[in-house]
Amino acid sequence: MTPDGSEAGRAFSDSERAAMRRAVTLARRGLGTVAPNPAVGAVILDPNGRTAGEGWHRKAGGPHAEVHALRAAGARAEGGTALVTLEPCSRQGRTGPCTQALLQAGIRRVIYAVPDPTLSGEGVTALRRSGVEVRSGLLAEQAAEANHAWLTAVVTRRPHITLKLATTLDGRIAARDGSSRWITGPHARRDTHRLRARVDAIAVGSSTVLADDPALTARTVAGRPGARQSVRVVFDRRLRTPARSRLASDGAAPTWILTTRPAADHALGSAEPVTIGPGPRYLTEALHALYDRGIRSLLVEGGATLAGALLGEGLVDRVIWYSAPRLLGQDGAPAVRGLDVPSCAGAPGFRVLGVRRVGEDVRTVLEPDSVRRR
Amino acid sequence: MTPDGSEAGRAFSDSERAAMRRAVTLARRGLGTVAPNPAVGAVILDPNGRTAGEGWHRKAGGPHAEVHALRAAGARAEGGTALVTLEPCSRQGRTGPCTQALLQAGIRRVIYAVPDPTLSGEGVTALRRSGVEVRSGLLAEQAAEANHAWLTAVVTRRPHITLKLATTLDGRIAARDGSSRWITGPHARRDTHRLRARVDAIAVGSSTVLADDPALTARTVAGRPGARQSVRVVFDRRLRTPARSRLASDGAAPTWILTTRPAADHALGSAEPVTIGPGPRYLTEALHALYDRGIRSLLVEGGATLAGALLGEGLVDRVIWYSAPRLLGQDGAPAVRGLDVPSCAGAPGFRVLGVRRVGEDVRTVLEPDSVRRR
Repeated sequence: MTPDGSEAGRAFSDSERAAMRRAVTLARRGLGTVAPNPAVGAVILDPNGRTAGEGWHRKAGGPHAEVHALRAAGARAEGGTALVTLEPCSRQGRTGPCTQALLQAGIRRVIYAVPDPTLSGEGVTALRRSGVEVRSGLLAEQAAEANHAWLTAVVTRRPHITLKLATTLDGRIAARDGSSRWITGPHARRDTHRLRARVDAIAVGSSTVLADDPALTARTVAGRPGARQSVRVVFDRRLRTPARSRLASDGAAPTWILTTRPAADHALGSAEPVTIGPGPRYLTEALHALYDRGIRSLLVEGGATLAGALLGEGLVDRVIWYSAPRLLGQDGAPAVRGLDVPSCAGAPGFRVLGVRRVGEDVRTVLEPDSVRRR
Repeated sequence: MTPDGSEAGRAFSDSERAAMRRAVTLARRGLGTVAPNPAVGAVILDPNGRTAGEGWHRKAGGPHAEVHALRAAGARAEGGTALVTLEPCSRQGRTGPCTQALLQAGIRRVIYAVPDPTLSGEGVTALRRSGVEVRSGLLAEQAAEANHAWLTAVVTRRPHITLKLATTLDGRIAARDGSSRWITGPHARRDTHRLRARVDAIAVGSSTVLADDPALTARTVAGRPGARQSVRVVFDRRLRTPARSRLASDGAAPTWILTTRPAADHALGSAEPVTIGPGPRYLTEALHALYDRGIRSLLVEGGATLAGALLGEGLVDRVIWYSAPRLLGQDGAPAVRGLDVPSCAGAPGFRVLGVRRVGEDVRTVLEPDSVRRR
């Protein structure tokens, strides 16, 4: 909540509140396609408080949400109010500053939900100097949640990391014989495909490539035909990904292999090597490399070793844990490897943000008790 | 649903439906104190459909629910309707048949929710022969759920078994150093005490006695002062329970040690040995011994070996799984030991009956896909 957020709560009309709610919904549509930009939604109300136009940011290089909404509103924007989920930009990027577009359209009042941590308030200052009333904090929590990954990433300079795990009740990801299909049911798998479509990149460790040869594509997302496939990433310090693996050979989406070894291109099929400097900070440096390449949200789908390493270094921002109502017993493969927890007192802890049934399985969303920012 | 249940659905009035709902609530009050009898509730409506009396069965040897309700109704029962959660008995037990009490009070209509599998309809026949209208099936599902354990036990001739487990997200019940306090939070522990107060007996394996020295008493159940403590049971084939353990020495509740070894009384403190014949069917025979001693519902609280053995033999009727948002890693103690599951295809499966947050933890209630009855 911004300083004037709670104070100004009563200052927002019902139509403004409804418009911001709509703007948050619109913002979410950009998730998975806007990187490295934030997902932003905007609604323009005419001077009578009626919706005149809406828009959302679709892809980097394309118009910002405000511009889409102003175009839709046309002359009806004159004297109206703009509701934007994120503080409007004031910099000349590829598309011109939004503050200028708002002024040119004759907007009298701008309400944004959350501040942009990459700006320093210059846009708001410019608007106010031109006589536009600017307020913030309306539905700040919802808007921040919709843009959660980007807001985290631009502060930490690494992608926001969601760790997805699918285990049995007793925390196993494979049976003694290595079989793991299927631990969770079709609903949970569809849910995973929806998650994949909303992030910039999907990652696994090299052991998972060797064991499961996953495709990591978003196959069954209804209503998003033509959505581009998220980048696929392999944390592969020792360059073990086979050129014949699906990730390296199917060409279904860009695939980056984060490795410290010199890679002969032909050894990786169509995958692209991304060289990480040798040294003990492999994970952190690999994540910064992803950030530098525009990745703001990363879905890590295992395996146990990568999950353990990220958790151990406090690099996980959110966990989505699918729990299948099955048991694999003590010979099953553990969900997390390499976490050194000698005693209960030192166990990494989480806060449950939500839990619900997904088909026959249970899905729990968690946030680490403390995320160390680096 | 009995044959006339669904058919007769429309034949029940709103006041009858409300009265049966109340009767189910009353029935639940007897859970934990009525064994070996069922938990039953009853409501008497006067001829105008107004509640004249209510009652529930409190303890074996005491009046049945119908008798309590008839006493409360007095003369207002004349010409009225009796709603009972279980088919009224017609046998001369310690308290006289309920059918006779209903007839003597001048009841004209009897509605029961579920049939009693230990009767063969003679009570209903007797009532009908005397001109009383008898119907069944009203709120059958809810009434069966309230009396679930008893209804299961009288058919299988062993106690209904609820397996309670409390693990981390990754399915661990103790850290590498053996520490397990506390994996779940205070809400989940209070919830466990409520479970304990509603069953006839609480059981653990002997390894748990040796490792944790639990008390297994229901300490913090609000609103049930003076509720008797459930019997405590140790599955202890090799008679390893120490006389100085809490279970054997604190005298807080009767404690039975189910063992195949000859027990010198002094070696078990105040606990009582129950001798089980040697042989491969130890678990099944131990459960029959509990049934013969009047136990209809058993809460098994671990450890991993007893849980694995019961699950492996298909002897678990319900699972209550508390999942704490923590991780203990691959060196933590597994939730279930001794289950032999070579491949995913053979993994024991369950149906999720419900999932909800309990304080900081998640509680999932499950039913095995197939309970083998023996």
